[in-house]
Amino acid sequence: MARPGRLFGLGVGPGDPELITLKALKRLKAAPVVAYHAAKGKKGNALSIVEEYLSPEQILVPLVYPVTTEKLPPHMNYEEIVSDFYAEISGTLAAHLDSGRDVAVIAEGDPLFYGSFMYIHDRLAHRYETEVVPGVCSFLGAAAVLGAPVAYRNQTLTILSGVLDAGELKRRLADTEAAVIMKLGQNFCKVRGVLEGLGLIDRALYVERATMAAQRILPLAEVDPDKSPYFSLILVPGQKWNG
Amino acid sequence: MARPGRLFGLGVGPGDPELITLKALKRLKAAPVVAYHAAKGKKGNALSIVEEYLSPEQILVPLVYPVTTEKLPPHMNYEEIVSDFYAEISGTLAAHLDSGRDVAVIAEGDPLFYGSFMYIHDRLAHRYETEVVPGVCSFLGAAAVLGAPVAYRNQTLTILSGVLDAGELKRRLADTEAAVIMKLGQNFCKVRGVLEGLGLIDRALYVERATMAAQRILPLAEVDPDKSPYFSLILVPGQKWNG
Repeated sequence: MARPGRLFGLGVGPGDPELITLKALKRLKAAPVVAYHAAKGKKGNALSIVEEYLSPEQILVPLVYPVTTEKLPPHMNYEEIVSDFYAEISGTLAAHLDSGRDVAVIAEGDPLFYGSFMYIHDRLAHRYETEVVPGVCSFLGAAAVLGAPVAYRNQTLTILSGVLDAGELKRRLADTEAAVIMKLGQNFCKVRGVLEGLGLIDRALYVERATMAAQRILPLAEVDPDKSPYFSLILVPGQKWNG
Repeated sequence: MARPGRLFGLGVGPGDPELITLKALKRLKAAPVVAYHAAKGKKGNALSIVEEYLSPEQILVPLVYPVTTEKLPPHMNYEEIVSDFYAEISGTLAAHLDSGRDVAVIAEGDPLFYGSFMYIHDRLAHRYETEVVPGVCSFLGAAAVLGAPVAYRNQTLTILSGVLDAGELKRRLADTEAAVIMKLGQNFCKVRGVLEGLGLIDRALYVERATMAAQRILPLAEVDPDKSPYFSLILVPGQKWNG
């Protein structure tokens, strides 16, 4: 029987292909199998980022999400569907690993920071030799293109999901010195309303697809809520410290 | 008069020299002047990380902190000392920029995530063409070597400074699903006490100098509080979600 392959979780950074690390690129190029997440019928951001670095002999394994929103009709159970999905794809990757092939799962941003790789890691890392290569996460890509220092000295920084309800968002935003709000998309209006209510709208910065070719930076007031993509975020930087 | 140089803030990642991005490395190699922060008599982590990539013709500009702790004797004013320091070094860098030389300021982790570069950015970015290249921040380097997913789905993640007082740390840790506590050093005992009080000690993970050659991972109970370095951190990962 072949020696099992190794599992790699590779952060490929926020979007600009040059924001991959030397280590992730090295591991990526050496992997016979490259797995990537994608929505049905789409290529997926992670694959788009690294496409130029791949060679034809590498086996590409698409991991296609069965659903792309948590808001489903009553007869569908999100938790169950997603749990089945991760069980299934972990089996697919395990088959490659059992055959002795190293598998690199590429992740936009960082693999362990709200990434889909985490669910594969939880299922396979105890069974196979595993290495995680961290990546530049989306909010730091955003801060860089916005030219906005995130947090000073001993300021508290809170990372929030736009999926949270308005009351919870309000409570947490009122009680932090700096914040990042991810997963906007259809949550955009709710989040903007909360920021307005708290008087934070002038401090809040908005960017879509930071560091990618299609990047857009615009004032919050000008964002069309129906067109705000999932890969947009709001940064509320900490108040400047006159250090 | 020469065309002014460009200012670069380059994230060089958490410690492993291979965790620099392709873009930061390219900018670093092209810069005639490389500035780095360091404590008096020390080389500084950022310089240690990129040393192997530098060439002899590059001008190295050390930016030596006048103090290394906020706890000073009564006759010394931390804010004033540090503000004077940033004004002075910004002048030094501006002189290079005015002479037409590009200046790369290297930053361990990410330049805009609690980094000293932020104070230079605030003073110079409106005066000179500036580009920030984001980097892999320390807590993601830590999560990778700990093999610990940071936060799942819609969990809130709070980034805290160990400098905060015990009451504030307790209040915030009790009200978040995942946390990172940075700036341990002499704050270690206080932080460990708070985690014990909240029953979080078994979930909390500790690492020193993550991804560096001198990296150490050990149980919180075994950490010698007198020897916990500034570049250590505690991660309290979010509860696993059975996705």
